[in-house]
Amino acid sequence: MIIVMKPNSKDEQVQEVCNVLKSLGLGVHISKGTQVTIIGVIGDKSVLTDVPIELFPGVDKIVPIMESYKLASRTFKPENSEIDVGGIKIGGKEIIVMAGPCAVESREQLLETAEKVQKCGAQILRGGAYKPRTSPYSFQGLEEEGLKYMAEAREKTGLKIITEVISEKSIEIADKYVDMFQIGARNMQNFHLLREVGKTKKPVLLKRGLSSTIDEWLNAAEYIMSEGNYNVVLCERGIRTFETATRNTLDISAIPVIKSKTHLPIIVDPSHATGKWEYVLPLSRAAIAAGADGLIIEVHPNPKCALSDGPQSLTPENFRELCDSIKDIANLLGRTFQGAVA
Amino acid sequence: MIIVMKPNSKDEQVQEVCNVLKSLGLGVHISKGTQVTIIGVIGDKSVLTDVPIELFPGVDKIVPIMESYKLASRTFKPENSEIDVGGIKIGGKEIIVMAGPCAVESREQLLETAEKVQKCGAQILRGGAYKPRTSPYSFQGLEEEGLKYMAEAREKTGLKIITEVISEKSIEIADKYVDMFQIGARNMQNFHLLREVGKTKKPVLLKRGLSSTIDEWLNAAEYIMSEGNYNVVLCERGIRTFETATRNTLDISAIPVIKSKTHLPIIVDPSHATGKWEYVLPLSRAAIAAGADGLIIEVHPNPKCALSDGPQSLTPENFRELCDSIKDIANLLGRTFQGAVA
Amino acid sequence: MIIVMKPNSKDEQVQEVCNVLKSLGLGVHISKGTQVTIIGVIGDKSVLTDVPIELFPGVDKIVPIMESYKLASRTFKPENSEIDVGGIKIGGKEIIVMAGPCAVESREQLLETAEKVQKCGAQILRGGAYKPRTSPYSFQGLEEEGLKYMAEAREKTGLKIITEVISEKSIEIADKYVDMFQIGARNMQNFHLLREVGKTKKPVLLKRGLSSTIDEWLNAAEYIMSEGNYNVVLCERGIRTFETATRNTLDISAIPVIKSKTHLPIIVDPSHATGKWEYVLPLSRAAIAAGADGLIIEVHPNPKCALSDGPQSLTPENFRELCDSIKDIANLLGRTFQGAVA
Amino acid sequence: MIIVMKPNSKDEQVQEVCNVLKSLGLGVHISKGTQVTIIGVIGDKSVLTDVPIELFPGVDKIVPIMESYKLASRTFKPENSEIDVGGIKIGGKEIIVMAGPCAVESREQLLETAEKVQKCGAQILRGGAYKPRTSPYSFQGLEEEGLKYMAEAREKTGLKIITEVISEKSIEIADKYVDMFQIGARNMQNFHLLREVGKTKKPVLLKRGLSSTIDEWLNAAEYIMSEGNYNVVLCERGIRTFETATRNTLDISAIPVIKSKTHLPIIVDPSHATGKWEYVLPLSRAAIAAGADGLIIEVHPNPKCALSDGPQSLTPENFRELCDSIKDIANLLGRTFQGAVA
Repeated sequence: MIIVMKPNSKDEQVQEVCNVLKSLGLGVHISKGTQVTIIGVIGDKSVLTDVPIELFPGVDKIVPIMESYKLASRTFKPENSEIDVGGIKIGGKEIIVMAGPCAVESREQLLETAEKVQKCGAQILRGGAYKPRTSPYSFQGLEEEGLKYMAEAREKTGLKIITEVISEKSIEIADKYVDMFQIGARNMQNFHLLREVGKTKKPVLLKRGLSSTIDEWLNAAEYIMSEGNYNVVLCERGIRTFETATRNTLDISAIPVIKSKTHLPIIVDPSHATGKWEYVLPLSRAAIAAGADGLIIEVHPNPKCALSDGPQSLTPENFRELCDSIKDIANLLGRTFQGAVA
Repeated sequence: MIIVMKPNSKDEQVQEVCNVLKSLGLGVHISKGTQVTIIGVIGDKSVLTDVPIELFPGVDKIVPIMESYKLASRTFKPENSEIDVGGIKIGGKEIIVMAGPCAVESREQLLETAEKVQKCGAQILRGGAYKPRTSPYSFQGLEEEGLKYMAEAREKTGLKIITEVISEKSIEIADKYVDMFQIGARNMQNFHLLREVGKTKKPVLLKRGLSSTIDEWLNAAEYIMSEGNYNVVLCERGIRTFETATRNTLDISAIPVIKSKTHLPIIVDPSHATGKWEYVLPLSRAAIAAGADGLIIEVHPNPKCALSDGPQSLTPENFRELCDSIKDIANLLGRTFQGAVA
Repeated sequence: MIIVMKPNSKDEQVQEVCNVLKSLGLGVHISKGTQVTIIGVIGDKSVLTDVPIELFPGVDKIVPIMESYKLASRTFKPENSEIDVGGIKIGGKEIIVMAGPCAVESREQLLETAEKVQKCGAQILRGGAYKPRTSPYSFQGLEEEGLKYMAEAREKTGLKIITEVISEKSIEIADKYVDMFQIGARNMQNFHLLREVGKTKKPVLLKRGLSSTIDEWLNAAEYIMSEGNYNVVLCERGIRTFETATRNTLDISAIPVIKSKTHLPIIVDPSHATGKWEYVLPLSRAAIAAGADGLIIEVHPNPKCALSDGPQSLTPENFRELCDSIKDIANLLGRTFQGAVA
Repeated sequence: MIIVMKPNSKDEQVQEVCNVLKSLGLGVHISKGTQVTIIGVIGDKSVLTDVPIELFPGVDKIVPIMESYKLASRTFKPENSEIDVGGIKIGGKEIIVMAGPCAVESREQLLETAEKVQKCGAQILRGGAYKPRTSPYSFQGLEEEGLKYMAEAREKTGLKIITEVISEKSIEIADKYVDMFQIGARNMQNFHLLREVGKTKKPVLLKRGLSSTIDEWLNAAEYIMSEGNYNVVLCERGIRTFETATRNTLDISAIPVIKSKTHLPIIVDPSHATGKWEYVLPLSRAAIAAGADGLIIEVHPNPKCALSDGPQSLTPENFRELCDSIKDIANLLGRTFQGAVA
């Protein structure tokens, strides 16, 4: 951390700041420039988290040098983490694809989808039982009943299952059924919820908030990890920008940035990023080409009848094409993807 | 709602869409242009919430005409709502100012602040007992102990009290102490939480999410109202943009926009919007001049020692200057503000 | 400027960077932290503008400490600048209002508008002769003919006149007529154009680019000033964000930020910021309350017939109300505004 | 175009609007809903460009249905356009790569770079002779001297050449040397410049503005095309968002969106989008995987000595790796790229 003094700051002011820092056990390094003096702070800066140094007389601004997260940082753990979801490893050589409907709507819809996505090569079944919706008047999910169908689908297909949790109570219930929790974009900074999934030790898919920086995203992962749950997989799903041609703007650069800053795996959700099924195939290819560890794709046996997110759902046929295509790209990059099994 | 067909759509496709609409009890109005055909949909569009019309053959896009919220809409209730917080009315002729520390840190700090802001003219005391922080290693609040100090401060000063809630449990506890709940920006689309405060009937201050449109904000208000709690006050606190000179960008235009779209009151939080105390006075003046119904301001007896948000906190002296200044502007606009009482 | 080395950088790498800096005549100050080493650079950093220090082995990143502009900086010139436009001073105690139609459409339209805005208190007449329009098929302006009407209006009313320039040639022609040039938002980083108006010494109103940071805006001012023309007035006119309820988002905080960073005056354009005439009055009040030195307002004798920007234009009646209102706010803040003269 | 009336609008108001529309030769289609009346407008809407319908009594808002550009639209020309740059076709089956230094710095630097990028497979040499820089104190380019070196490099290597133009005069000079003009992001809405390159008939690479929507981008293309120059190639180079981990945010979705809306080719500039050379390879792969027609890449024989944009420049070795990699991806997608020729 660097403390930049104002151009007209006085020596006593520099001294006062240094005294505070030293009293907290920190080292200081003063550097006088032609215009301003800067103070380098040495030692464990966490003792400064709650000290508003900006307010001391003569101080212009604080410039952080190191990230504020630790457990999630690649400096802390240089090698890639592989997250185990019921035997499926995310973050290794193999590309992992999660697929399924936005919302679990009925037993039939879910079992049919599960069977189809499994044949195309998906390893994990997604399905929403608790649906956060912008309008209170939209369909809000089947809750526990939906989770039972998910578990049945796992039984029948061998797919692992993931669902979104939105409250303490939904964690408690979902914990009995699913292999992996999902934290949705709107809850990325619901710190209470992050701590709760942190306590479970079950793998967590952490979606990036609509307007969250990569730094904030990794701090959200840190919340989960600081409770002892290191099984975090990140999911880029588009950020909010001024462009309205797509629902959100997929931040494809986040893939190499994440790979450089953290050891955690990253997958991509092109369905929510664009909101239109026509764009899901090209963006899936792009994500794998950019180095993503997997994808999460909305698939519905009959998108026209979907109760939620129909316009961005692939048919099983389109999903098979997608799986075939990313298998080839994965191979080019020295990775593997099982692809269609039937 | 308007359904726009593709330039090359066929008559049968237009017919198919119309049949679906009619089967749902809706009226249709077909308008053939030189390039495209559009279908106007007449009736209660809520039956369409979960029908992905975009996926029908020949359909290009859907253009919503009416807002998706109802109870919050000024069309639904044309006259201004006044929200009663323990006898204080927000949304009427009188400007209401909430003030206090970001976090309740100790009994002494809170009681001293309460006494001072009350003398300057504040009617409501703010203070965080449950603190959502970006880093898991920052101070997280005194929880129920803090609420007890808040209640004591109310006893001593007559100020009403408001605190942020972040989970079901914190609602349950805070409900025993406070006069008003606050939903923070990061939880604006935590729909589970919105429903829970909706069930209480206690006034709610709903902060705008960092990247939420005004439309989404009013839909979040609708969540609370749809549970029967109509006592919602909106709070503009800055949105996320590319500009980094201030922490967020205060969307001052939101004030007249909100006044035109909803009957609910709106107040402004210049402390969080800018992150710098120097900008709080000019932006408070601007907010009142633009027609806001009040302000929420961070005040700390000794900002240099604040455990949270010190850099954006006013001293009691600066806060008095602010109250004096906005009183004059309020009067110019035909409104009142009690101002300093001692 | 601070150079931050990577956590695992070697002493020789630190030394190599220092050698380069010293060879350029700069001083260095090395500060070894527990995790990283940082190098403080002392002296005239402009010699480094074109040296990519980031690429030297072991370097993690560069952290600039000082602004990149100089002539525009308040550090360079602490007292406010007052810009003289034909005898009218912008940036002093007096609030200055520019008003007029978006585009000069005809002699009658312009003379009528000029007379009316002059009576309400405007000191400067605005009017577009060269119109940059998003679509090539929209009305593009009367060019020199429009400027002749502007000059006639000045003759008749005593108002000073301002027009937008968009090319070398338009500068050359407008220079013969107007008292002040305007650089539009879309041309804020048209550096060639900035240099050209810099060479004229005539006052320039520099609008902020739609997606320009305050730092880039001041660097654009620096372009004009570096040619010897110090007569720059800044104009905040809204930035592009995700919010679509208004055409752009007026960055009201830019007013106090600009006041702290530069000695140049700042005025506000609420007409372009919002795109809707209903919001122009509240935002004009807010701008003056926040400390702006003036306003630029679109006024049209008959907005329904305007060839450009009709929806955001005030009628003369509404403009009179605006002038009356801001006069009161100006007085409250210890400033003056002449207000209606007839 | 749809005109939406206010909920309380009167029949006479609807009639007045219809009368205006009819007087302009347009057809109308009235559709009365349960809450609002809407008017569908039929015919050539360009007659309405300069009529502010929003201002008529009772009108709530205008909803455009069709795009405002025509020549650039895929509706107007359904098949892909191939743009011929001195015999090189952009937009066909073959992937085209442009490469070279940000700025032409010297004859040696340019000839060395040209020779190397040509061997790796680039077909077009890029090099800046007129450099728009944020700070007026940065290196601004060698101007015509630089163009002479470019022409010499073409002579020696067979590469076609492209350079950025920034003013009428630079167009005039560059026209004597280069095969293709580039319009930079900051000039995307410099309509005067667009018209000037439109008059030349020489191919134009039109970079997307930092905060331009895809719709505005295509309208900028329309400016060039409306002057009779149909040889426009689009270039996605990142948009401005709140994320600061990369210089801009590469909008990868723009590729499929552009492919659906226009017949013009699109290439991608990952160097400017990210600002860091480490991210150029993964994003180049992603761009080709998403369907881009080519790339433009900054390559410098010795990035550490580059006078401009060194941190984002590839070495010739890295560039060769990039070319090898995208050749494979191109082949997977049924396209071709010549790749390394030596």
